Amino acid sequence: MTQQTAGLAGVIVGTTAISTVGKEGVGLTYRGYDIHDLAKHCLFEEVAYLLIYGKLPNRQELNHYQKKLSSLRELPADLKTSLELIPQQTNPMDVLRTACSLLGTLEPESNKLKQTDIADRLLARMPGILLYWYHFHHNGTRIQTETHELTLASHFLHLLTRKKPNPQHVITVNTSFILYAEHEFNASTFAARVTVSTLSDFYSGITSAIGTLRGPLHGGANEAAMECISTFRTPSDAEIGIKKMLAEKKKMMGFGHRVYKISDPRSDIIKQQSAQLAKDHSEGYFHSVAERIEQVMWNEKKLFPNLDFYSATAYHFCGIPTHFFTPLFVFSRLSGWSAHIFEQRQDNRLIRPEADYVGEKQRAFMPLSERK
Amino acid sequence: MTQQTAGLAGVIVGTTAISTVGKEGVGLTYRGYDIHDLAKHCLFEEVAYLLIYGKLPNRQELNHYQKKLSSLRELPADLKTSLELIPQQTNPMDVLRTACSLLGTLEPESNKLKQTDIADRLLARMPGILLYWYHFHHNGTRIQTETHELTLASHFLHLLTRKKPNPQHVITVNTSFILYAEHEFNASTFAARVTVSTLSDFYSGITSAIGTLRGPLHGGANEAAMECISTFRTPSDAEIGIKKMLAEKKKMMGFGHRVYKISDPRSDIIKQQSAQLAKDHSEGYFHSVAERIEQVMWNEKKLFPNLDFYSATAYHFCGIPTHFFTPLFVFSRLSGWSAHIFEQRQDNRLIRPEADYVGEKQRAFMPLSERK
Repeated sequence: MTQQTAGLAGVIVGTTAISTVGKEGVGLTYRGYDIHDLAKHCLFEEVAYLLIYGKLPNRQELNHYQKKLSSLRELPADLKTSLELIPQQTNPMDVLRTACSLLGTLEPESNKLKQTDIADRLLARMPGILLYWYHFHHNGTRIQTETHELTLASHFLHLLTRKKPNPQHVITVNTSFILYAEHEFNASTFAARVTVSTLSDFYSGITSAIGTLRGPLHGGANEAAMECISTFRTPSDAEIGIKKMLAEKKKMMGFGHRVYKISDPRSDIIKQQSAQLAKDHSEGYFHSVAERIEQVMWNEKKLFPNLDFYSATAYHFCGIPTHFFTPLFVFSRLSGWSAHIFEQRQDNRLIRPEADYVGEKQRAFMPLSERK
Repeated sequence: MTQQTAGLAGVIVGTTAISTVGKEGVGLTYRGYDIHDLAKHCLFEEVAYLLIYGKLPNRQELNHYQKKLSSLRELPADLKTSLELIPQQTNPMDVLRTACSLLGTLEPESNKLKQTDIADRLLARMPGILLYWYHFHHNGTRIQTETHELTLASHFLHLLTRKKPNPQHVITVNTSFILYAEHEFNASTFAARVTVSTLSDFYSGITSAIGTLRGPLHGGANEAAMECISTFRTPSDAEIGIKKMLAEKKKMMGFGHRVYKISDPRSDIIKQQSAQLAKDHSEGYFHSVAERIEQVMWNEKKLFPNLDFYSATAYHFCGIPTHFFTPLFVFSRLSGWSAHIFEQRQDNRLIRPEADYVGEKQRAFMPLSERK
């Protein structure tokens, strides 16, 4: 373990057939398909199906899959009661982590309820879980978590706003879900694989992943980016502010990447969405602010924006509260996590590494009565 | 990544000052102290203090620590309500995983509630969480989770049996807690470190660890061992049965170890406890059955028992239901997990490895309407 490979940076720890990240000349592919094609042409449901079931669905399979997901949106009564007990000021990621774990007690994995069905249930229900909790505590309403919306993106936005969503917002959220769906052995996916490598259950794997994604060095980055962007009103304010931050050795979230070395192929796609939405938004200047931050970060640090950076402004323009940004990452990445859990189980070996010991040499034991 | 290093077997992924496992000539040490000394002379509370606070406590520190832990045993009302919603037939590990996650919403980590205090709270409360849930569903009783017992071992046994525990049982459970407290980069500890490496919160780390420990290739092994042992009534039955299992390529849990190659230094310690308790127990023959299984496994497979094997019979003789064995592992390992989370945070680097891609080559995208 050298300083370079600390945190397993660049260390190959297994094989995967699910995605390639940053491989030479390929950028990002899900099961061989380029992310640009998927983001341009697909519903998120097609991509989730690709990840979970291994192929892009045909029309009939997609219809069936969308119907299945729609039919699973109702939450068990005991889950709703528990959500009411979770305080209003809770980090929403803790709500999702707890709800996932609780679902594992209410509807455990079994021969009757198999891993793919649990994956689909979690995909279908996570927006309802977040928004049932949210509306109960913020508006005193017990919302109905079923809608007639056919996609996860429109379903989420409908539950958030309690009305038919803006079509452009649906497009942006759908695109972001595709971009966030899968990313090889990132920390949350790796945590899920470590967890199920003991032959633990599916819910334990996803619960670990949600808790891991929560941190600002991973999923939490899109929220941290928005918090920073929203402190500026003009590009020149931003330029001054970011340079000051860098001089103070503060970290700007949403830039650079452990695996991508030149650019993040997902960034331009979501940046376009952000630019489009900025045109008609009263706070559209946040997009220009973000562009200036991008410029400064490149000039000063040679760091490029990753997916989390322009997702922040794009989500903001869709009217999504900042503390829901990482939960949206969960809604989507559930598909990739699920695929990785299946893959880990298919050819399982316990993930149990070792450590270099750097502590106290062996020392003589001293009985309680003699200790100072 | 060769076949040999799959599952990160033998791969050093970081440094630790907390314990050594299987290092030449040292066996198992916690912060430099040999496991034999700790198991022979200590209360579990001394060992937990050593792991969490970095030194063996003196008399005054130990008294203070025991009082602190005792004072934290009451459960928040909303946690109790949620425990009542978790079905009776749930895997108890799922109860602990969910309760830990929920506590993260009720009493989140903050500047006011720091990591060491959360570690102590979880240590103090886990037995109460398990047994509040258990007695509510099995006996229809809402138990008081506070007792006058001064140790975790006696507190747990008191809550289990609802009376003053047998002193020999207290000794055995205390010893087992010391043996289970810490074990370097095992899968659950590693999962906790991956989780907090994103700068996620303390509860997320422990929640991941509990979900990971749950699997039969890790903590679940002591339960699986007991289930197997309890199918035999005599040593010769066991010999025939185990040889048959081996011939059918079935796995006997509680044998061998990823890191120990010759023996598990903890096994003899807990085996002595099992032997002692067997003398006065109506099912004492399970100890002879276990000894014969040990013999057969050595003769046939050159595999030695690990801690989980004789823990199974020892716990059984203490009157502990088999499905509580892995939760007992949690009560104890919380101390080691906590120490590792502190250590990971002290010199954090995101744990984000990479994978070898073995999937589909890049392929042309096909629009929905053209898919077969």
